[in-house]
Amino acid sequence: MNYNAALKLFVLVIAQTLLLPALSQANEPDFQDLSAAYYKDHPGKGKYGPLWSPIPIQKYWNPKDFYQPPSSVQGEKTAEQCVECHQSLTPGAFHAWKNSIHANLDNIRNLSSEDARFYKKQKLEDVEKNLRQRGLLRESENLAQVGCIDCHSGVGAKSVDHAKKLIMPDRAACGTCHVEQFAEAESEKAQTWPQGQWPKGHPSHSMDWKANVETAIWAGMPEREIAQGCDMCHYQQNKCDGCHTRHTFSAAEARQPEACATCHNGVDHNEFENFMLSKHGTVYQTQGKAKWNFEAPLKDALTKGGYTAPTCQYCHFEFEGEFSHNLVRKVRWGFNPTPAIADNLQHPWFSERKEAWLKTCADCHSPGFAEAYLTAADKGTIAGLKVEQEARHVVENLYKDGQLTGQKTNRPVPPAPEKDAPGGFFQLFWAKGNNPSAVERVHADMWEHDLVKLYKGLVHANPGGFTYTEGWSELMKDYAFIMNENTVLREEHARNLPKPAKNGFVEFLTSRYLLGLVLIGAGVAFILTRNKRS
Amino acid sequence: MNYNAALKLFVLVIAQTLLLPALSQANEPDFQDLSAAYYKDHPGKGKYGPLWSPIPIQKYWNPKDFYQPPSSVQGEKTAEQCVECHQSLTPGAFHAWKNSIHANLDNIRNLSSEDARFYKKQKLEDVEKNLRQRGLLRESENLAQVGCIDCHSGVGAKSVDHAKKLIMPDRAACGTCHVEQFAEAESEKAQTWPQGQWPKGHPSHSMDWKANVETAIWAGMPEREIAQGCDMCHYQQNKCDGCHTRHTFSAAEARQPEACATCHNGVDHNEFENFMLSKHGTVYQTQGKAKWNFEAPLKDALTKGGYTAPTCQYCHFEFEGEFSHNLVRKVRWGFNPTPAIADNLQHPWFSERKEAWLKTCADCHSPGFAEAYLTAADKGTIAGLKVEQEARHVVENLYKDGQLTGQKTNRPVPPAPEKDAPGGFFQLFWAKGNNPSAVERVHADMWEHDLVKLYKGLVHANPGGFTYTEGWSELMKDYAFIMNENTVLREEHARNLPKPAKNGFVEFLTSRYLLGLVLIGAGVAFILTRNKRS
Amino acid sequence: MNYNAALKLFVLVIAQTLLLPALSQANEPDFQDLSAAYYKDHPGKGKYGPLWSPIPIQKYWNPKDFYQPPSSVQGEKTAEQCVECHQSLTPGAFHAWKNSIHANLDNIRNLSSEDARFYKKQKLEDVEKNLRQRGLLRESENLAQVGCIDCHSGVGAKSVDHAKKLIMPDRAACGTCHVEQFAEAESEKAQTWPQGQWPKGHPSHSMDWKANVETAIWAGMPEREIAQGCDMCHYQQNKCDGCHTRHTFSAAEARQPEACATCHNGVDHNEFENFMLSKHGTVYQTQGKAKWNFEAPLKDALTKGGYTAPTCQYCHFEFEGEFSHNLVRKVRWGFNPTPAIADNLQHPWFSERKEAWLKTCADCHSPGFAEAYLTAADKGTIAGLKVEQEARHVVENLYKDGQLTGQKTNRPVPPAPEKDAPGGFFQLFWAKGNNPSAVERVHADMWEHDLVKLYKGLVHANPGGFTYTEGWSELMKDYAFIMNENTVLREEHARNLPKPAKNGFVEFLTSRYLLGLVLIGAGVAFILTRNKRS
Repeated sequence: MNYNAALKLFVLVIAQTLLLPALSQANEPDFQDLSAAYYKDHPGKGKYGPLWSPIPIQKYWNPKDFYQPPSSVQGEKTAEQCVECHQSLTPGAFHAWKNSIHANLDNIRNLSSEDARFYKKQKLEDVEKNLRQRGLLRESENLAQVGCIDCHSGVGAKSVDHAKKLIMPDRAACGTCHVEQFAEAESEKAQTWPQGQWPKGHPSHSMDWKANVETAIWAGMPEREIAQGCDMCHYQQNKCDGCHTRHTFSAAEARQPEACATCHNGVDHNEFENFMLSKHGTVYQTQGKAKWNFEAPLKDALTKGGYTAPTCQYCHFEFEGEFSHNLVRKVRWGFNPTPAIADNLQHPWFSERKEAWLKTCADCHSPGFAEAYLTAADKGTIAGLKVEQEARHVVENLYKDGQLTGQKTNRPVPPAPEKDAPGGFFQLFWAKGNNPSAVERVHADMWEHDLVKLYKGLVHANPGGFTYTEGWSELMKDYAFIMNENTVLREEHARNLPKPAKNGFVEFLTSRYLLGLVLIGAGVAFILTRNKRS
Repeated sequence: MNYNAALKLFVLVIAQTLLLPALSQANEPDFQDLSAAYYKDHPGKGKYGPLWSPIPIQKYWNPKDFYQPPSSVQGEKTAEQCVECHQSLTPGAFHAWKNSIHANLDNIRNLSSEDARFYKKQKLEDVEKNLRQRGLLRESENLAQVGCIDCHSGVGAKSVDHAKKLIMPDRAACGTCHVEQFAEAESEKAQTWPQGQWPKGHPSHSMDWKANVETAIWAGMPEREIAQGCDMCHYQQNKCDGCHTRHTFSAAEARQPEACATCHNGVDHNEFENFMLSKHGTVYQTQGKAKWNFEAPLKDALTKGGYTAPTCQYCHFEFEGEFSHNLVRKVRWGFNPTPAIADNLQHPWFSERKEAWLKTCADCHSPGFAEAYLTAADKGTIAGLKVEQEARHVVENLYKDGQLTGQKTNRPVPPAPEKDAPGGFFQLFWAKGNNPSAVERVHADMWEHDLVKLYKGLVHANPGGFTYTEGWSELMKDYAFIMNENTVLREEHARNLPKPAKNGFVEFLTSRYLLGLVLIGAGVAFILTRNKRS
Repeated sequence: MNYNAALKLFVLVIAQTLLLPALSQANEPDFQDLSAAYYKDHPGKGKYGPLWSPIPIQKYWNPKDFYQPPSSVQGEKTAEQCVECHQSLTPGAFHAWKNSIHANLDNIRNLSSEDARFYKKQKLEDVEKNLRQRGLLRESENLAQVGCIDCHSGVGAKSVDHAKKLIMPDRAACGTCHVEQFAEAESEKAQTWPQGQWPKGHPSHSMDWKANVETAIWAGMPEREIAQGCDMCHYQQNKCDGCHTRHTFSAAEARQPEACATCHNGVDHNEFENFMLSKHGTVYQTQGKAKWNFEAPLKDALTKGGYTAPTCQYCHFEFEGEFSHNLVRKVRWGFNPTPAIADNLQHPWFSERKEAWLKTCADCHSPGFAEAYLTAADKGTIAGLKVEQEARHVVENLYKDGQLTGQKTNRPVPPAPEKDAPGGFFQLFWAKGNNPSAVERVHADMWEHDLVKLYKGLVHANPGGFTYTEGWSELMKDYAFIMNENTVLREEHARNLPKPAKNGFVEFLTSRYLLGLVLIGAGVAFILTRNKRS
């Protein structure tokens, strides 16, 4: 070894022992900080909290604020007792866990580099290293398994007081080990819109509970069992099992489009239907289900995974070539096309995000195709927005003019904190008497459903989803209904206007009766005159 | 062997040879009894039979009453000839059968106990034992296969007169071998509601043909080809191939949720959609399709089957920890929430069934979760029922007051045996002139579709299925439309009331014309007087 | 070898060397002819071409008329450079191709006759033979692979000028090798309807671009980004990747029902939903997805493929026992039930096609079942058509009588070349002011959506698809709405008729005022007379 070679080696060793770990530590998120920020940012019951009381099921949608352990099982239980008892008590949960990675960590340690799951070996080592640094795992110790007690009490706990200390795991509980994923997911909160189109962090999984409880009609509606239906999706801020369902907590499950389906379907966010009917989705269904390997991490999707089309996860977890649990860095229309977005698409905030999308699409498509398609999607969305805005104007004018059906006779106000408004969001979930009137409800459907579906159909490349089955044709239908109702209501109104107060004297002077009378009078006068003469 | 041991052995032998078979026989259903009861209970054409005539396709939906062998193939055909001819004539049917268990019974005999299908070995022995007892199989004989002729003529038949004796198998035909399943399925007929909410046996697969033919509008509607669309699901009482499709007759097929989909989807029973979009369903789609073993019987679903979420079958075939073809022992709301059910949920009949559900859910969930969720589902259903009942009242009052559109000018009566009624079930399948009026049809949709979907969405844990895409938000929409129409119709009616009959003389006395005339008269009188004076 | 044997051998050799190739050549389609006819028949922009300009994305839906290579990459690129560059530029496309048959032709050559894909070996040899005959492949040469350049420049090309000569492959490009499939697909254009119900070749994949661009409202609507949504399905005339998606171009993919789903779903052609919910579809989902081998060609579907139920492809590619890419030889109702079809079903053109269907169904079902079912489907469709026609008459009369909402005050004409008409097709995609009025749009939905779904539900054996969720019950609903609106509009019209012009003199003569005046006059006369007398 000559001098140069020795110098190079020296530099390399220094770099490896000093610099890289330092960099690595600098990049690694700190669980304590993350966890503190997570709880600090959590809205709890939200600003309308005093207006509603949780019902029992809500302790599972927001354990942080509402969960209490059951009193049915008393006393301190060991880790082994948990498993033993639940094996017969809740066998479905037991077997799901027993066959999961959590119960078989050694399987991970022995993976060959050929295996699509090989990346988990490194992840496990990272987790263990992190736990050791935080004193949750002894230096010499490996994680044998993650069992009931590790999540429902604390990592490494030996026993738990079942009636007093049992916890229902939240995002931070999962984040105890999965620090990187926790940090990625929480980083969604940093999103800020350039013209305040939406509040900070909206829309994102990391703020969806806040969005839920701070929606006026959600807080105000008296039917709490219906309202908690919103919670059943808007709880991602609270828990991780929306995608990684208990008690398997599988990454392969969460990489499949159906994992998104429970929440991302239906009238105002039909992404799942659009994906499945697009060519992306049909390739997934014909080729992917049988042949792709969902155990491969997203970064290996095209190689080890064998993907020949994208999944929800492939496009939405990606940003600038990297994959993470921050899904919002390419958000542009954000679930609801509005003029405030449409009018600002040239702003760098939006155009840079479009650039980021172009890179995503270009994993498979030519840049020319991607540019042409995304531009068409934007313009198509704007075309729909224009139609909706015209209809909105018509409905608002009817309201302003007091001409909505029953507006003056039978229009109860919505429950507080909601306020009355024509075609308001609340009208999709609350109705009483003539609030909403039919034309308003149709408009509410138009802006909240048809327009969103138009845009979702466009961006997910489902032709029937934006031209005829959903989207444009439905916008046309609701527009036609609103215009029809506008004409009927205004004609009706015109017809029922009190006739202008008549001037009786003028009318009398101009009436044919006066003419008759004058003629009669003239006749009488003539007779009289004749009489007189006679 | 000492005395005691010998005594024990003696008792054991006695027990085994006398007692256990006796017990076993006592428990084993008797095919002759079952079959006789099946045909005795069968409604045939039902009480409205004289009003309709079967169309050709119906011989396949109800072979018992309508099937006649085709005259196209004449003469006695052997079992071998059946197979030979149909191999080329209907190759699809042939290959399905050829690859099925029925054509390969020996495969069952050789299964190892590790195989998920091992239970079939015992089932086959039971079937053979039973057939031997009934003289349908010789003592020394094993069933080699179940071929065309065994089902289309009779078990063990050697030949059949194709034009005269060929049968289309019904429930009893399958029950010839599958006695236990036949007995379980028929036991559904025993269900009785505590306050007569539904007739005995309703709803169940074992009485669905009766429910079909005794529906007034089904019997009365002139379009028989449309009406037989109902038969296409309501024939489970007649045949078993609704779930175990011919000619594979697979148990593994029937254990998958899609097996239920043809009938349990759509506007008034969207269980399939709700399941598939729930987390139960997405786990099935992401994990189950690829990994679960549907050859395992339901009792082994969590172990050999590897299920990590329930299927339709797992929850609905289960009762108190046992699985059977009686699916109705946990029925509570029964497809149609009504006040008669909502007002009686505290009755033991309902509360015990809720308890049975809690046990089902607790296979995977904590009892606390199950109780909280089911209670929310009940309360949410009741909230929807209240909205529907208010709308029903409005529509019924419009009908009572004769103010429905066209009610007095263009309302034909529905075909017999149906009778006119506002918002009636028949209005979903029959329309003429202004029956139904628009507001009635919307109400029919509301109680038959929206409300049912609300409840089905709730109990199948599909949040969008009960809050916004279907269910609550649709109830709100239809309610708003009905209230809007009510206001319009009543305002219109008020406007068009004949003006109160006027008293012409009184009016004359009070009119300005009288005043004019009096003035003229006075003027004339004045002139006359002046004339007179002059 | 004796004389006879020698003679036989001589004849055989002559036959093989002269006759069979001649016959074979006679049967084999000629690419040059096909290609020439393909371009000659291609409508380009269609007869309304002057009315619209293509937007950028359309160069991908119709490359023949609109595609230009990108200027971003300049210079001549070799076949190897294409692959090398796109491996990193568009890795998704690269990997899809790399794992496809096109990149691994030698795999085909080595297939055993047991393999379901064995037929591909013969196909490959045919392709090579054909290419050799046309001088595109040297006699001694085998196709090593089909790479980027073979499709994007020309088969066997060594390099391409990327900015000037790059092509976007069309049907003819694929047909260069796949001559037989090209010929089959193009043969759809020969279809002629017996009473001119549809123009020649309609409906078919081979004329769908023409159907697209020659639709008046498509050409006329100003929102080109929405209009191109139609292109996204109506491009099969232009390209083959609608079913064999790039860059895998898999036959196995195209044999699965989901391959048809992107286009054949939704409001006016919900074949996919109907199939999936039918028993055919549920068997596919429960048995087919896990067990059938889609690598088997359709002719081996029941044997090597193991199909136990049909797919879209199995029934629609079949005609008289043969399978091909001509899908229209059994078309009867053609997407849109009309009286011109309903009234002619006894015509041989229709009855022969029904016979062909009966043969298809009889692959699995008895002829009796098939006949009974298809007859019921026809009659059910006709029943729906009758309802729609009655509603059509009502709407047309309202239009004729000028009584549609806003008809005289707010009815803009649709954009050229479209012309105004009540309930017209254009009203599904364009709306302005009161065109369409609500009743018209409901009728447009009725004939274009409900009726089509009724018929599609019937022919695909999805009971809920034609009785209650879609089809009949929706027809009833829209009929009820139309009848309701008709009564309201006509009563309203009657009420607002200008009162008949009154003859003032006659009225005066018959009025009570005249009576009063006469009485007054008589009184005056009496007074005068008395005065006179006095």
